[in-house]
Amino acid sequence: MQVEIWTDVNCPFCYLGKKRFNDALADFAHADQVQVVHRSFELDPDFPAGESGDVVDKLTKKYGRTVEQVVDGERQLGAAANAVGLDYITSGRDYGNSFDMHRLLHWAKDLGRQEEMLDALYLANFAETEPFFGDTERLVKVAVGAGFDETGVREVLDDPQRYAADVRADEKQAQEFGVNGVPFYVFDRKYAVSGAQPPELFAQALTQAWDDRPQPTMLADGDACGPDGCEVPQA
Amino acid sequence: MQVEIWTDVNCPFCYLGKKRFNDALADFAHADQVQVVHRSFELDPDFPAGESGDVVDKLTKKYGRTVEQVVDGERQLGAAANAVGLDYITSGRDYGNSFDMHRLLHWAKDLGRQEEMLDALYLANFAETEPFFGDTERLVKVAVGAGFDETGVREVLDDPQRYAADVRADEKQAQEFGVNGVPFYVFDRKYAVSGAQPPELFAQALTQAWDDRPQPTMLADGDACGPDGCEVPQA
Repeated sequence: MQVEIWTDVNCPFCYLGKKRFNDALADFAHADQVQVVHRSFELDPDFPAGESGDVVDKLTKKYGRTVEQVVDGERQLGAAANAVGLDYITSGRDYGNSFDMHRLLHWAKDLGRQEEMLDALYLANFAETEPFFGDTERLVKVAVGAGFDETGVREVLDDPQRYAADVRADEKQAQEFGVNGVPFYVFDRKYAVSGAQPPELFAQALTQAWDDRPQPTMLADGDACGPDGCEVPQA
Repeated sequence: MQVEIWTDVNCPFCYLGKKRFNDALADFAHADQVQVVHRSFELDPDFPAGESGDVVDKLTKKYGRTVEQVVDGERQLGAAANAVGLDYITSGRDYGNSFDMHRLLHWAKDLGRQEEMLDALYLANFAETEPFFGDTERLVKVAVGAGFDETGVREVLDDPQRYAADVRADEKQAQEFGVNGVPFYVFDRKYAVSGAQPPELFAQALTQAWDDRPQPTMLADGDACGPDGCEVPQA
């Protein structure tokens, strides 16, 4: 069974949701037959690349909230993160364009190490006070710290076309599915769950998706090779 | 849209089917949004690794056919291959265990170059007279000839565990779908086509699968970040 998870590195609920989903998956009876793929979704694609700002300042301007509301929201997110064993800095977190991070996540997927890359990006963003966005050297340091090869990381970051089409394709698919918020979980393209749900709900969704996993409808049957040899076509 | 194609390198109809499917895909209006993945299926997993034999000899013994029937079948397969512009040697082709080839195909998938690897394996098997099975050096030569890095190829072939679980997972999925012959085409896990169909049928299947591509059913909606910010959870 394939689970596709649309996320953004900028998204606190995606960080929480990853832990809660993984907790549910760890207890799932068929976990060894579940393949998880993280897909790209940018919450703020128009934010200028190469810039960074305090998240409270940015969120008040972007969403018209008071500083108190944003600060309070961060505190509540911090408490929810801590409740599932995640570190979370409730002040000083920065904000920015995540496109290059999504390109790195696609590269890491090709290496079969997407989970490690995403964990490293989340930690750097949500659990470390050092500014994270708009600074390529910081991004290189985070990826290398997670065990990725520095030359490989730089090759991806230095070429803006590398994996750009993959990021766009993920976003186009999200649009087709009507996704307007993340995290967004899709099970074998048959069922979907939106949001950082409790592990119990993810457990239920995994079970339902597994029990109902799709069996394709045959459109046509023809010349094939099987255990008894190949059927010969009429030339 | 994802198209998964179960194949074996030992399977003449898979070789034909790849060309016919690709011809249909080349004319498909949404080809740029179709992702093709080749999955593993072994027609003869019990054939001893490291051995090779004449295909006519093997097929007569395995399927109880007369030499004339097998020779005639190869001639008809050759004619069908030639009709779509493929070379096909109608005598002297060999036969063997394809597990290592499937491991290489999974490695090539990670590199985003699965099509090139599969084309090279098919050509070496069906269009070149030099023996192909049971000979690691020949396999290295074929992969390197297709532009793959020799060190990388040898690393995969020298470690029998590399990608072995991926091959088994593909075969388990095929079993779940009730696949008993290849090629077998699955469109977004919703529709399936068996066999080396004519390009017109593949074109119809692509259109139907595209028009009916799945829209996941929402199981739950919850705390998420969207264009208007993040909904704050009740801590």
